[in-house]
Amino acid sequence: MLETIFSPKSVAVVGASPNPNRLGHVVLKNIVENDYRGVVYPIHPTATSVLGLSAYPSVLNLPETPDLVVIVIPPQQVLAVVDECGQKGVRGLVVITAGFKEVGGEGKELERQLLAKVQQYGMRMIGPNCLGIIDTVSSLNVSFAALMPFKGEIALMSQSGAMCTAILDWSKAQGLGFSRFVSLGNKADVDEVALLHAWNHDPHSKVILAYLEGINDGPGFVNAAREVTKNTPVIAIKSGTTAAGTRAASSHTGSLAGSEAAYEAAFHQSGILRARTMNELFDLAMLFAYQPLIQGNRIAIITNAGGPGIIATDAVERSGLKMATFSAETVEALRAKLPPTANFFNPIDIIGDARSDRYDTGLRAALADPGVDAAIVLLTPQAQSDLIETCEVIIQLSQLYRKPVVTSFMGGYSLGPALEMLSANYIPNYTFPERAVQSLASMVRYTQWRDRPAPTYRSFEVDKERVRALFASVRESGRVELGEIEAREVIDAYGMRLPKSRLASSPDEAAQIASEIGFPVVMKISSPDILHKTDIGGVRVGITDAASARDSYELIEYRARKYSPGARIWGVLVQEMVRKGREILVGVTRDPQFGPLIGVGMGGIYVEVLKDIAFRLAPISEQEVDEQLRSIRTFPLLRGVRGEPSADIAAIEETVLRVSQLVMDFPEIVEMDINPLVVHNQGEGAIVLDARIILK
Amino acid sequence: MLETIFSPKSVAVVGASPNPNRLGHVVLKNIVENDYRGVVYPIHPTATSVLGLSAYPSVLNLPETPDLVVIVIPPQQVLAVVDECGQKGVRGLVVITAGFKEVGGEGKELERQLLAKVQQYGMRMIGPNCLGIIDTVSSLNVSFAALMPFKGEIALMSQSGAMCTAILDWSKAQGLGFSRFVSLGNKADVDEVALLHAWNHDPHSKVILAYLEGINDGPGFVNAAREVTKNTPVIAIKSGTTAAGTRAASSHTGSLAGSEAAYEAAFHQSGILRARTMNELFDLAMLFAYQPLIQGNRIAIITNAGGPGIIATDAVERSGLKMATFSAETVEALRAKLPPTANFFNPIDIIGDARSDRYDTGLRAALADPGVDAAIVLLTPQAQSDLIETCEVIIQLSQLYRKPVVTSFMGGYSLGPALEMLSANYIPNYTFPERAVQSLASMVRYTQWRDRPAPTYRSFEVDKERVRALFASVRESGRVELGEIEAREVIDAYGMRLPKSRLASSPDEAAQIASEIGFPVVMKISSPDILHKTDIGGVRVGITDAASARDSYELIEYRARKYSPGARIWGVLVQEMVRKGREILVGVTRDPQFGPLIGVGMGGIYVEVLKDIAFRLAPISEQEVDEQLRSIRTFPLLRGVRGEPSADIAAIEETVLRVSQLVMDFPEIVEMDINPLVVHNQGEGAIVLDARIILK
Repeated sequence: MLETIFSPKSVAVVGASPNPNRLGHVVLKNIVENDYRGVVYPIHPTATSVLGLSAYPSVLNLPETPDLVVIVIPPQQVLAVVDECGQKGVRGLVVITAGFKEVGGEGKELERQLLAKVQQYGMRMIGPNCLGIIDTVSSLNVSFAALMPFKGEIALMSQSGAMCTAILDWSKAQGLGFSRFVSLGNKADVDEVALLHAWNHDPHSKVILAYLEGINDGPGFVNAAREVTKNTPVIAIKSGTTAAGTRAASSHTGSLAGSEAAYEAAFHQSGILRARTMNELFDLAMLFAYQPLIQGNRIAIITNAGGPGIIATDAVERSGLKMATFSAETVEALRAKLPPTANFFNPIDIIGDARSDRYDTGLRAALADPGVDAAIVLLTPQAQSDLIETCEVIIQLSQLYRKPVVTSFMGGYSLGPALEMLSANYIPNYTFPERAVQSLASMVRYTQWRDRPAPTYRSFEVDKERVRALFASVRESGRVELGEIEAREVIDAYGMRLPKSRLASSPDEAAQIASEIGFPVVMKISSPDILHKTDIGGVRVGITDAASARDSYELIEYRARKYSPGARIWGVLVQEMVRKGREILVGVTRDPQFGPLIGVGMGGIYVEVLKDIAFRLAPISEQEVDEQLRSIRTFPLLRGVRGEPSADIAAIEETVLRVSQLVMDFPEIVEMDINPLVVHNQGEGAIVLDARIILK
Repeated sequence: MLETIFSPKSVAVVGASPNPNRLGHVVLKNIVENDYRGVVYPIHPTATSVLGLSAYPSVLNLPETPDLVVIVIPPQQVLAVVDECGQKGVRGLVVITAGFKEVGGEGKELERQLLAKVQQYGMRMIGPNCLGIIDTVSSLNVSFAALMPFKGEIALMSQSGAMCTAILDWSKAQGLGFSRFVSLGNKADVDEVALLHAWNHDPHSKVILAYLEGINDGPGFVNAAREVTKNTPVIAIKSGTTAAGTRAASSHTGSLAGSEAAYEAAFHQSGILRARTMNELFDLAMLFAYQPLIQGNRIAIITNAGGPGIIATDAVERSGLKMATFSAETVEALRAKLPPTANFFNPIDIIGDARSDRYDTGLRAALADPGVDAAIVLLTPQAQSDLIETCEVIIQLSQLYRKPVVTSFMGGYSLGPALEMLSANYIPNYTFPERAVQSLASMVRYTQWRDRPAPTYRSFEVDKERVRALFASVRESGRVELGEIEAREVIDAYGMRLPKSRLASSPDEAAQIASEIGFPVVMKISSPDILHKTDIGGVRVGITDAASARDSYELIEYRARKYSPGARIWGVLVQEMVRKGREILVGVTRDPQFGPLIGVGMGGIYVEVLKDIAFRLAPISEQEVDEQLRSIRTFPLLRGVRGEPSADIAAIEETVLRVSQLVMDFPEIVEMDINPLVVHNQGEGAIVLDARIILK
């Protein structure tokens, strides 16, 4: 779909001035000087030629319809040019011109009109307000970047043009290359979702990097990313998180979530590796672009120095990887060739005076061992080190055994040629061993994601109509928050268990209902006008016989009339007294970008004080809810500590999945708390004690 | 004290061979070629001159007593040479020779003898088994390192010679210089403690770096570091942590602590900044060596690009720093000179086409604002950027205002000369903004440490004699674990409250005691032979009257005789029934290096499942216990949530301090748990319900 933009047979540059100080000139020059193999047309109102190419006054005058038109003219003139492009039948645009949405006011309106025209003509557009795009596969540099990146297998999209410049400059120094390099600008049309789709199955990109500041279409992004990450790792850095967390939230869950939780869940559920820093972004990019995927988590370390070996071993254990245990053959192979003072176990210490032959022995034995999934080669430059020969050994062995090999050559001054050689031969080198380890740990997480079974979604039989009608009536009454009885009805319609309960309108009826429900019961005043029932003594618990039920009715009604004169009183609710269990909070908040976000945690102080709650975006799969629940710190309390039996975890999971179905069915639910869900022991189910639902 | 080693007037090299491949030759050459201004004597059995210097067959033949002797000969010959040095009156040794403790067996014995001789002659020694030392202040390079470091204000000690090599190589590429550079080797004599003392008040070192693998004298290290960090920041990286955590521990606290907790507490309590990675170590070294100390936590950011500005702002908020709020004057100054599309608030966005004049405007206004404590200057290289002029502006302003200024020039390829200029002028540059922010955050932690009030230690009046006698009798009986009654006695002797309790030997006496203590009471079998009292029904709670007390006595005694026939029965303990409160665990474990480590956390699942416990080394000051308690995640539960009153926090702190005094008084206590300490509301105190003490 975006072929005409990334692999155009012909490109016209509108604003290609003969003046070398103008941006349009720079763009044209970048196309011409970087081996673009198609036809290039400068468009300029007066010039007859620019950079030796025939120039045309308008797109309309071109001898053919160009695949791609790049626009680098003042914003006021852009719409007219887009019209001309439309008339000419152009399909692809890159609008570098700034002065649109990013300046607010009129610019915003101008961008709206621009997008309308683009859509009207069936075009696709990158920008406006961007640095342009670079595609090393088709040798196309349609940008005003000062540098052409190396050719490589990393596709990059960035919402910040300045980050593009910095990344180009940095990558050029590191010898890192790109396949596609896109400055998204205001992303009025082509955005991160469109690019993810376009780059799915791209044979030229082994890894996709994204620098994101915000995402418009959250669910679209998650779906696209889920598709792509099955084949290609996606590494994203999301900035602008903390400052944004100021959204007002009236519910419990909302205030716990913040906007950060939605991004975290979106990345987690779509298999995107999130980099926390730019360093990490490139550490990972290098590993995925250069090395094969790791097949397990067992790491071997080869080192010529004890200290760095310890540092790396520590890092392996801290990051959830495992130090490989060598087979007897491996240890024998090491013992046969290494000096007796070497360490034949993991980490393999080949001693400070090691030359390349010992690196060969150590790395070969490690990679040949079926119990090793990846190797880290550490080197501190010593008098005896033969750096180039050692690099040759590493490069050769890494190609022989298709397992990831990374290095940490520690130092700088004396390493120049060796580091260049490693980079040119696709061996990722990290200045310090910890970063090598952390990168491998992320790669393990990615392969685990890729290898996980396909997610399954449960669909429950529910009474959707009943909820629809109820919401309609709530809206009609001008309210957004459901009353207690209404909320109970929704819970019931979606198949979640509630305490047995009926409304009594006399002491005798209360006693009758209580006997039918079974003692003990709880009794509560039922009134639309009394919100804080407990405060006026309108709730009595632990009622164990019919006489007490009669007494309680009278007392509750008396108190309600006394302390809330004028309140409408519907009667007294007689309710099954639920026996104690572990209390869970299941809450929903609706993220403006990503939609419903469902949190689950142990209720009370655990979520309030310890903030121990895990969020996932709806719809939640069976695998996701399982993993969600296991990710809270207090999960051991659910599984049971000190010989306690396990709580009914399946019942919690089912509740979350039913809530997921409910909020997907009814986008008008903006907030919801089930608090508490009382969970009994395994096999004994869970009961919703209280629920709160707020509509848009 | 170590003057003769670091600033010797004369140096002899034993093993200074004429053969350029021998280590002794390399060492001699390093001394000669690096501008050492004293006298150098090669010592060699046969050579008459080495590198043009007159050689001597032995130290004994020298015309004077050299201040320092470097030994680079086979290990078997070292002792004899040390004897000669002793006879000649030498005071300082650097033993580079390997083959001592690190090879085990005979080497260990050789090292013991070496140290004995060194001490006998009153010498100080670096090594053995080290790379040597380099002191750029006295232009002394007594090492076989391949490079001489730049002169600078960083003092470094490293337990790993290979790390020394790597660090030298790396620093040389970064332009970072050192004042002292010490490879500690086996640190038989001079260790990290001795160097800390030697480097206290060193006018040539603005920061001390330490690469540590293990510490022998924990308390000595903590005391030395506490002294030094008052004047000079110390940054340490400790490796070899996870693998070591296998020490057997029989108590609750011991198993929660691990060896890592002791190091963490030691660094924390002595003001050492702990670097987690080598990257972080050098990020911090650069900042402290180059820039003045920060006086607050308010950061200003100046950037020519929005994206990196957001990244840096996020990092500031995440790391506990504050984005500075500018004064009206500052905003006016910015508005007067910057283009209208710039951002005049923090972060100051001077727009992509900014040249050095806008950097001047932005940085000057920020540094002049009294509400700004430090500035971060971000730059992505754009077509209009004038890098060298911008560097000049930054350097000049950083010298004018004595506030820390750091940069993040993002890129690589086009930045070379700019980065060299920044480094040469003491402006720390970080490839990515997050690292600039994290480094400033660490600097803030250091100044907070430096500015904190001096710690105060409470001393309680206790009955030390009683405990001493008790421990003696426990040891006499061949036990290491105290019985319940004995443990209670210790608790009582150290002034901690226990439930009122007396032993009854008849039903009537039980009723009598219970009436005196006050109902309700708890009654428990008292027998040295019955460990699991509850299991045999030997505990009854909630006894509310005299009749029940009599009944309980008989029942408990009956059960004890029935289920534990032959057990010695001392009677039945009648105990005050402590009303409910918040339960706290106070535990002690003894770290082999650092001594007693005291943990405090909320009891039960909070420590068991959530591992929410904070450790400090004893003796603990009043300030430390306060901060210790506040550092547990569940601290809000102690302060009270949901309108609950606060627990008696002062009573918890006092308990910890009394335990601290106890374990300092009695080093034979290896483990101790107070679990639970029942804490009532503020002002109502805390009671020890159960305690366990294990002696060496």
